[in-house]
Amino acid sequence: MFIARSEYDRGINTFSPEGRLFQVEYSLEAIKLGSTAIGIATTHGVLLGVEKRVTSTLLETSSVEKIVEIDRHIGCAMSGLQADARSMIEHARVESQHHSFHYNERLGVESCTQAVCDLALKFGEGADGEESVMSRPFGVALLIAGIDEEGPQLYHAEPSGTFYRYDAKAIGSGSEGAQAELQNEFHKSLTLEEAETLVLKTLKQVMEEKLDSKNVQLASVTKEKGFRIYSDEEMSVVVERLPTN
Amino acid sequence: MFIARSEYDRGINTFSPEGRLFQVEYSLEAIKLGSTAIGIATTHGVLLGVEKRVTSTLLETSSVEKIVEIDRHIGCAMSGLQADARSMIEHARVESQHHSFHYNERLGVESCTQAVCDLALKFGEGADGEESVMSRPFGVALLIAGIDEEGPQLYHAEPSGTFYRYDAKAIGSGSEGAQAELQNEFHKSLTLEEAETLVLKTLKQVMEEKLDSKNVQLASVTKEKGFRIYSDEEMSVVVERLPTN
Amino acid sequence: MFIARSEYDRGINTFSPEGRLFQVEYSLEAIKLGSTAIGIATTHGVLLGVEKRVTSTLLETSSVEKIVEIDRHIGCAMSGLQADARSMIEHARVESQHHSFHYNERLGVESCTQAVCDLALKFGEGADGEESVMSRPFGVALLIAGIDEEGPQLYHAEPSGTFYRYDAKAIGSGSEGAQAELQNEFHKSLTLEEAETLVLKTLKQVMEEKLDSKNVQLASVTKEKGFRIYSDEEMSVVVERLPTN
Amino acid sequence: MFIARSEYDRGINTFSPEGRLFQVEYSLEAIKLGSTAIGIATTHGVLLGVEKRVTSTLLETSSVEKIVEIDRHIGCAMSGLQADARSMIEHARVESQHHSFHYNERLGVESCTQAVCDLALKFGEGADGEESVMSRPFGVALLIAGIDEEGPQLYHAEPSGTFYRYDAKAIGSGSEGAQAELQNEFHKSLTLEEAETLVLKTLKQVMEEKLDSKNVQLASVTKEKGFRIYSDEEMSVVVERLPTN
Amino acid sequence: MFIARSEYDRGINTFSPEGRLFQVEYSLEAIKLGSTAIGIATTHGVLLGVEKRVTSTLLETSSVEKIVEIDRHIGCAMSGLQADARSMIEHARVESQHHSFHYNERLGVESCTQAVCDLALKFGEGADGEESVMSRPFGVALLIAGIDEEGPQLYHAEPSGTFYRYDAKAIGSGSEGAQAELQNEFHKSLTLEEAETLVLKTLKQVMEEKLDSKNVQLASVTKEKGFRIYSDEEMSVVVERLPTN
Amino acid sequence: MFIARSEYDRGINTFSPEGRLFQVEYSLEAIKLGSTAIGIATTHGVLLGVEKRVTSTLLETSSVEKIVEIDRHIGCAMSGLQADARSMIEHARVESQHHSFHYNERLGVESCTQAVCDLALKFGEGADGEESVMSRPFGVALLIAGIDEEGPQLYHAEPSGTFYRYDAKAIGSGSEGAQAELQNEFHKSLTLEEAETLVLKTLKQVMEEKLDSKNVQLASVTKEKGFRIYSDEEMSVVVERLPTN
Amino acid sequence: MFIARSEYDRGINTFSPEGRLFQVEYSLEAIKLGSTAIGIATTHGVLLGVEKRVTSTLLETSSVEKIVEIDRHIGCAMSGLQADARSMIEHARVESQHHSFHYNERLGVESCTQAVCDLALKFGEGADGEESVMSRPFGVALLIAGIDEEGPQLYHAEPSGTFYRYDAKAIGSGSEGAQAELQNEFHKSLTLEEAETLVLKTLKQVMEEKLDSKNVQLASVTKEKGFRIYSDEEMSVVVERLPTN
Repeated sequence: MFIARSEYDRGINTFSPEGRLFQVEYSLEAIKLGSTAIGIATTHGVLLGVEKRVTSTLLETSSVEKIVEIDRHIGCAMSGLQADARSMIEHARVESQHHSFHYNERLGVESCTQAVCDLALKFGEGADGEESVMSRPFGVALLIAGIDEEGPQLYHAEPSGTFYRYDAKAIGSGSEGAQAELQNEFHKSLTLEEAETLVLKTLKQVMEEKLDSKNVQLASVTKEKGFRIYSDEEMSVVVERLPTN
Repeated sequence: MFIARSEYDRGINTFSPEGRLFQVEYSLEAIKLGSTAIGIATTHGVLLGVEKRVTSTLLETSSVEKIVEIDRHIGCAMSGLQADARSMIEHARVESQHHSFHYNERLGVESCTQAVCDLALKFGEGADGEESVMSRPFGVALLIAGIDEEGPQLYHAEPSGTFYRYDAKAIGSGSEGAQAELQNEFHKSLTLEEAETLVLKTLKQVMEEKLDSKNVQLASVTKEKGFRIYSDEEMSVVVERLPTN
Repeated sequence: MFIARSEYDRGINTFSPEGRLFQVEYSLEAIKLGSTAIGIATTHGVLLGVEKRVTSTLLETSSVEKIVEIDRHIGCAMSGLQADARSMIEHARVESQHHSFHYNERLGVESCTQAVCDLALKFGEGADGEESVMSRPFGVALLIAGIDEEGPQLYHAEPSGTFYRYDAKAIGSGSEGAQAELQNEFHKSLTLEEAETLVLKTLKQVMEEKLDSKNVQLASVTKEKGFRIYSDEEMSVVVERLPTN
Repeated sequence: MFIARSEYDRGINTFSPEGRLFQVEYSLEAIKLGSTAIGIATTHGVLLGVEKRVTSTLLETSSVEKIVEIDRHIGCAMSGLQADARSMIEHARVESQHHSFHYNERLGVESCTQAVCDLALKFGEGADGEESVMSRPFGVALLIAGIDEEGPQLYHAEPSGTFYRYDAKAIGSGSEGAQAELQNEFHKSLTLEEAETLVLKTLKQVMEEKLDSKNVQLASVTKEKGFRIYSDEEMSVVVERLPTN
Repeated sequence: MFIARSEYDRGINTFSPEGRLFQVEYSLEAIKLGSTAIGIATTHGVLLGVEKRVTSTLLETSSVEKIVEIDRHIGCAMSGLQADARSMIEHARVESQHHSFHYNERLGVESCTQAVCDLALKFGEGADGEESVMSRPFGVALLIAGIDEEGPQLYHAEPSGTFYRYDAKAIGSGSEGAQAELQNEFHKSLTLEEAETLVLKTLKQVMEEKLDSKNVQLASVTKEKGFRIYSDEEMSVVVERLPTN
Repeated sequence: MFIARSEYDRGINTFSPEGRLFQVEYSLEAIKLGSTAIGIATTHGVLLGVEKRVTSTLLETSSVEKIVEIDRHIGCAMSGLQADARSMIEHARVESQHHSFHYNERLGVESCTQAVCDLALKFGEGADGEESVMSRPFGVALLIAGIDEEGPQLYHAEPSGTFYRYDAKAIGSGSEGAQAELQNEFHKSLTLEEAETLVLKTLKQVMEEKLDSKNVQLASVTKEKGFRIYSDEEMSVVVERLPTN
Repeated sequence: MFIARSEYDRGINTFSPEGRLFQVEYSLEAIKLGSTAIGIATTHGVLLGVEKRVTSTLLETSSVEKIVEIDRHIGCAMSGLQADARSMIEHARVESQHHSFHYNERLGVESCTQAVCDLALKFGEGADGEESVMSRPFGVALLIAGIDEEGPQLYHAEPSGTFYRYDAKAIGSGSEGAQAELQNEFHKSLTLEEAETLVLKTLKQVMEEKLDSKNVQLASVTKEKGFRIYSDEEMSVVVERLPTN
């Protein structure tokens, strides 16, 4: 019943009688309003792909950054509130550089994900801590892709501070349909090139606009080249490779 | 339904069940009450133009500052609450000078925009941080224009902390009509002079008062001269150039 | 609708769905309850004039201070809550002396006004800052008059932290009628003496009590004498000069 | 309408839609519940007189202190909450001693009053300031009487932090009737002895109990003797001088 | 009307529209639920007497401490919440020792009472002060009895921070009847022995249980012996002296 | 009436119109939900006995600690919230060791009880104090048993911070019936062995489960052995000594 | 009645009229939504077993960590919110390492459990303490298994900060059925191998998915090997050993 629920969900960090944290659940809704992002882990590297919502032809699509570098060996795709994502990613970058500097080794992909999730858990705890934390849950989900001694890995991090490792994962407004597609098409022996096609084919199905080389973006993390965002030329090549139907 | 919504929008920084942040959305309404501002990025430089609302003939129009300098190579037009804008711009100026001093190079236009947006995100976080932050979202939007190694650039920064780069962008009460006009008229090969005409022509269409050389203001950022506000004489020249109909 | 509005105006510093800040708007009402004050900028100096409400013949009218000195070259007239005004003016005085001491030059009139407005913006931000700030908006408006290298200037500062420069401006309970009068009568070539007459004539029209040399007060800022409050004798002279009708 | 008002007066320091501060207005009601106090300024000195409410014959009337010394040249009569008054007076005493010690001169009567009013303004601002401040307005009004280079002076200080100088002023439950009487009877050439009679005659009219030498108290501030409270014998003399009717 | 009142009494330290502080008034109710205590000041010393409520024969009556020593020359009887009283008395003891140590003289009885009342006033002011203060008014009233240069004195201190000196005063659940009895029977020439009888006779009338030497307690402050609590033998002597009817 | 009451009991530390502190009263209800504990003071030592609620045969009864040592000469039985009790007892232990260390003497039993009660009083006072305090009253009552120069003593400490000394006292869900039994059976000349029998006999009457040597626990404080918890063998001996009916 | 209750459960740390702490009770509901976890203490070591909920075939089951190491001799299984568990376990790890470092001995299993529970108790106490604490109760229960001088031990720690030692204990959504099964099947002479079978057999009964070697996980703490998680091969062996029906 709505009236009863409303009495609990106003407190930003309190349990409802059913043991639920409504503010955290509502932040998931913010993510469902976001653009779709997809990650696929292959044995050759991890591939990230995102939809870019271009609301105006006057908008510079290059400034719609939905995939960013965290470190040379870790990148991330996001869905949800842009400004929140910036905070989380800045945190991940600092943690990663801090780790390199102190231990002279690269931060593990799982450790990087955990650092982001520990920050996410701290909302509502006041401003006394070392990190400047939020007074509400972060309204963003991340797909963190990287390579370390454990090989290529893909993690999904939620506003609740929960994270899991996936072979392939979709987030954002089209995530439901996209995840079903990935479930059908993914197999362990996918090549990076096949993954490129799978990501774009899946995005094409769930995007409202017609997919072209400007309103989607791919990035990969491989052992040889680390994290890199595809150039306009590379994007055109992959888009042209897509089956036309 | 109004009653249900009102239960969420009172909390300054909490999600509604649909994943929305009402206080941030309401701050956008404050901007829609503001005067119209327009920015156009050309290959020769960026042009900013604003409407000045002159409520009394006794008001010194020169004290209605809607376009201000951030640094020698970056300027900004605003729409919304004047006092809020002052805080954001002061922050941008300090960041810019800080950067020059420490790194002996000019702050990039995107970095400058990001600094302003990071401040915008921090509302509601208490007064313990280094910067004195707001207890509500800023009620102002900025068009940040500048030139750096990447060439002339125009950014739009919102109270949510979100920013995008545009070729041409309008904000404020007349933004809807003005943006449509820009969409029609903008092309990549515009000269600065053509941009001057386009800005004023567009403002003329959306302003309630009759446009004259006193109630509008232009400014430009060019490689040669950096940021500069047009003098009264220059304004007269451009206004006279406008087609009369 | 009243019920809906009341849900937003209780939060001291939150936006309503229409993008309004009710507590700031209500503080303007406090000013409309205050006594009328008028300022006129001439090329020879700035003139300030105020109504003194004398509620009892036992009240010492000299203790009703509605015009005060900020520095030797800047003065100010106020309308609204007396105690709030004291805080703002004390702040302006400290800033002015601080500036003189550090830079060995007089604080500019606009800079002085901005210092007052920056303080006004900070309400509701806790008591951690350097200045002891208010937990509500200031319930006072100021007319700041001064002379610097830019010549004689008159600024109007509001509780919202907004300020504009005016040729002539009225605030307080009679401001509407007075501003209309000023709009009609003001011209750029007014002498100080004509300004004296204009201020008192205008106050006479909007005051409930009959104007005499005890219940109004004039002050001027001129290059030669800086800020000075008119003596009782000077007041009598000007009052007698008024046309009797 | 009551319901609407109640939505604003709960916030201790917020404006109502009409620009009013209800908590400050309610504190004035606390003063109207207090015993009556009267002050009269003559050219020979200032006279203070108060009613003492003696609820029981077992109460030591000397412990009902409604008139107290602030410094050798300043005294004060109060109406309202006893404990609140103690805080304000303690503050005034400290300021006065501090001033004497640092500047080797006596604190002016107006400066002393302003110090008390600045404290009054600070309610609701947290406990971080140097002075321990109240979380509500003070529920007390003061009549501050003193002599300095400006001669004998009487100030009235309110919970709002507002103060004015008066020739004669009454506060407390009987203030309305008493003030009317003072307005009729006061003239500039009153002697101190005539002022004694006027104060007691006025108190007699507004007190519920029958006035005698135990339930009223007089004090004076004169150039020769500074602040002094009348002895029992002196009180008897003045009371016997009163016309009996 | 109840509904209207309830809107004000929830704020712990705010005025109602009638100028009342409800939380302070409610704390007086807590005292009316407490056991009765009586104090009588004679020229030979001050006598304190209290009822001890013995709810079980297994309760050690000696642990029901309703009369305690503050210093060698000051003692105190209490009515209301035991734990609150402990805080106030601890404060008085520290102030008294502090004074002796620094000034090498005994703290005056009025000063001691004022120290307790200043603490009482501070409720609701946060925990930043030197003393750990309460977040609500103290729920206890004290009768403070002592001897200094001014001779034997009895003070009554309330949760509001108000205090008065009395010849004889009763507090607690039976205070109304007891005070009427004291008013009838007290005279200035009472001996200490007569005061002992008067206190117990009065307690007998207002106690629900039958008075015996175990459920009442006497203490005295005299010049010769300072503060002392009557021994069991002394109590028996006084109780047996009571008229039996 | 329920609705009216609910308006007051939400404030954690405010008085109701009747002078009651609801949160403290509700915490007593938490104790009535707890297991029964009994203490008896004899001239030979103090005996403590508790019921252990064994909700599962897989539960290690030794981990259900309802009687614990505070110092070598003081122990304590508890009823209510286990985690709250841990905080209070930890506080008592620290105070006791602190006292021994600084003054080279054992902490008195009454002083130990008072230290616990002073902590209990501090709830709701923020986290700035030296001790980490609770934001609500403690939901636990303690029976503190010890021996010092005053001989064997038993104290009962409540969430309100009130404490009294008892010859015999029962707390927890069966306290009403148990206290009546103690009232009937206790006499000053009880031996420790008789006290053992009386405690278990009383517990047997009020426990829901059938009493055996596993679901009850005894402990004693004697001059010779200080505080000690009975071993399984000792428990069996006492249980077998009980009359079977 | 629901309406009445809701007035109390909104305060995160206040008692209801029945003496209940609703937020703590609601956090137990969060645990009932979690996956089932089981612990069994044998004389040879302690065995932990958990269900892993695999919502997608693309999820890496190894990243679903429901059993983790605290120290070489202590491990823990969890049910409830993953991110909350991470905070508690991180705290336990730090305490354990701190203890080893300072005292050169391993932290006892009970002490480790108590450290976790002391942290759990501190919710709602602000962020000033040494540890960063939660603004709500932890939504997670732990089964802490370890070996020290007292032999193998299993503890159950709740959000309320309460903990007990068990021979065998189940938590999470299937806990009710599982605990009944354990009650029937557990005996003191179980071998570790028998415990493995019992844990999986019990999980099989309460899991919604069909149990296989991927969606359950076992771990043990033994004197010889300390804490260790079963490898995939070991899991397969035990799963195949299960009776098929």
